[in-house]
Amino acid sequence: MARRGNLMSVRPDIKVLDCTIRDGGLCNNFEFTDEFVRELYKTNVKSGVDYMEFGYKASRALFNEEEYGKWKFCKEEDIRAIVGENISDMKISVMADVGRCDYKTDFLPKSESVIDMVRVACYIHQIPAAIEMIEHFHELGYETTCNIMAISQAHADQIDEALSMLAGSSVDVIYLVDSYGSLYPENAGDLVKKYLKSVEDTNKQIGFHAHNNQNLAFANTIETLSYGVSYLDATALGMGRGAGNCAIELLLGFLKNPKYSLYSLLTFIEKFMVPLKQEVVWGFDLQYMFTGQLNRHPREAIAFTDEKRKDYCEFYKGLLEND
Amino acid sequence: MARRGNLMSVRPDIKVLDCTIRDGGLCNNFEFTDEFVRELYKTNVKSGVDYMEFGYKASRALFNEEEYGKWKFCKEEDIRAIVGENISDMKISVMADVGRCDYKTDFLPKSESVIDMVRVACYIHQIPAAIEMIEHFHELGYETTCNIMAISQAHADQIDEALSMLAGSSVDVIYLVDSYGSLYPENAGDLVKKYLKSVEDTNKQIGFHAHNNQNLAFANTIETLSYGVSYLDATALGMGRGAGNCAIELLLGFLKNPKYSLYSLLTFIEKFMVPLKQEVVWGFDLQYMFTGQLNRHPREAIAFTDEKRKDYCEFYKGLLEND
Repeated sequence: MARRGNLMSVRPDIKVLDCTIRDGGLCNNFEFTDEFVRELYKTNVKSGVDYMEFGYKASRALFNEEEYGKWKFCKEEDIRAIVGENISDMKISVMADVGRCDYKTDFLPKSESVIDMVRVACYIHQIPAAIEMIEHFHELGYETTCNIMAISQAHADQIDEALSMLAGSSVDVIYLVDSYGSLYPENAGDLVKKYLKSVEDTNKQIGFHAHNNQNLAFANTIETLSYGVSYLDATALGMGRGAGNCAIELLLGFLKNPKYSLYSLLTFIEKFMVPLKQEVVWGFDLQYMFTGQLNRHPREAIAFTDEKRKDYCEFYKGLLEND
Repeated sequence: MARRGNLMSVRPDIKVLDCTIRDGGLCNNFEFTDEFVRELYKTNVKSGVDYMEFGYKASRALFNEEEYGKWKFCKEEDIRAIVGENISDMKISVMADVGRCDYKTDFLPKSESVIDMVRVACYIHQIPAAIEMIEHFHELGYETTCNIMAISQAHADQIDEALSMLAGSSVDVIYLVDSYGSLYPENAGDLVKKYLKSVEDTNKQIGFHAHNNQNLAFANTIETLSYGVSYLDATALGMGRGAGNCAIELLLGFLKNPKYSLYSLLTFIEKFMVPLKQEVVWGFDLQYMFTGQLNRHPREAIAFTDEKRKDYCEFYKGLLEND
């Protein structure tokens, strides 16, 4: 499969999705001020961002609303308090986790909601459950995605089967999600070619969501896009769980479509993200590099960070022992 | 040109060159303690690193010895004070800049020196001067490289001509140097294929030296190596001018040759590099991203960093105005 376009091309199929509030919310318990979210919304509109994700639609039966910021639940009225009717061209997405979302009761029909797209996140063995949700959201009138997480631990035959099931579903976009940040551009490229092949006789699109454990989030994003991935997740200053995500400022600086404006984004980054980075910890560090190299969930690295440990060697030895 | 090997391959041609003291020295005026340099030397030997670069052989007529740490000059006795006769398998290199090195007087014959390789750094218009130096070092018995800097600003026909001149010289290794950190893996790959083609009928090798302005130093390094680049520059914790270089811990974690030991390296990083990072500033930051995206020398970004400025928008506007 050849590259699609080159470094000078404008690809109209490309959609940049800002998930600062959603993935970044995993770093600060979704406790963003309304001012922050409103300014980010206005910034994304001005910067030409195509989708902004506001957070999760988590089950209020499973999670106590008192213990989290509101963007873990993304109530309709909370989103509307920021965007009104969202008269902009930018679309709004929320994420719904398989098994952690009361999807039958918590979603209005699209005609009554300001949300445009629901992204269903699942592990590969949850594909049947994900498809049930996707069909429900599709019937309600939403655009849908399926974000298959932790793909670096799935087997090739599982991936083939999952892609074939999704190709037969109503889903609009299938996401390759490098949850552990353990893919190199070479295997991210190989994997995504498989995804692209699986939808080539459909009008479905492929997306990519990176983590920066090996400092490859941006590199993997532009590698996969070069083969035809259209939906690109990114966050301001790379804010996201653990080592964070693809930094949107790197991505907008790379894309050649003149609709994207890096400068508009910078004003937000300078005023809101740089100060936030002083309070909330995320981003590339050795402990995340280890879990990425070992293709493991970053939970131990997150705990190491929370405990402000600096004994990298002991930590690494511990990882090797319980590998 | 196809990739050479795959992600599981051991490539015996691969040589890892640690240039922490040399490129990192640009961040701290080459003022490393002897203990630091000695421990790094021992660490590199244990970690399987193939070459360690001790610094520059700068002209003492042009530069006042009082104003720099000793590794800007790399006197024979100073290197020997660290390595003795260097009975290890690891080789020792120094860098000689065209126009800033008294190469006719400052180098002993190889038989009397503990230095194994001299790396001649030049801009593309200095290739004839570089070749004169290379022939001199070759006659003295050293391995030689030619590191053509700032390659992202050279024209295709200049590069072709330079490569053809070098192919006819005695040089052992030709380096692609992304001084401005402005290459993407896609164009780094294209460029390096040209380098590899230029030496395919010789026994010369190709090397790559990255800068991390767009967080692509590691990605570009593994992309170019996949096509056949053998000499890979890296530094501990990515220490190097401005945004720094390819981090050696990322690279050793990637390489499959069991001779490389990440764990040996980590003990040095934890004990020496993590504390040093508290005192000396280097690494990816927005100001370096801007100069990388704009394909410019990082000098303004380095000044911005030195002045501890945080007005990224003003800085960016200023860059665009004098572009």
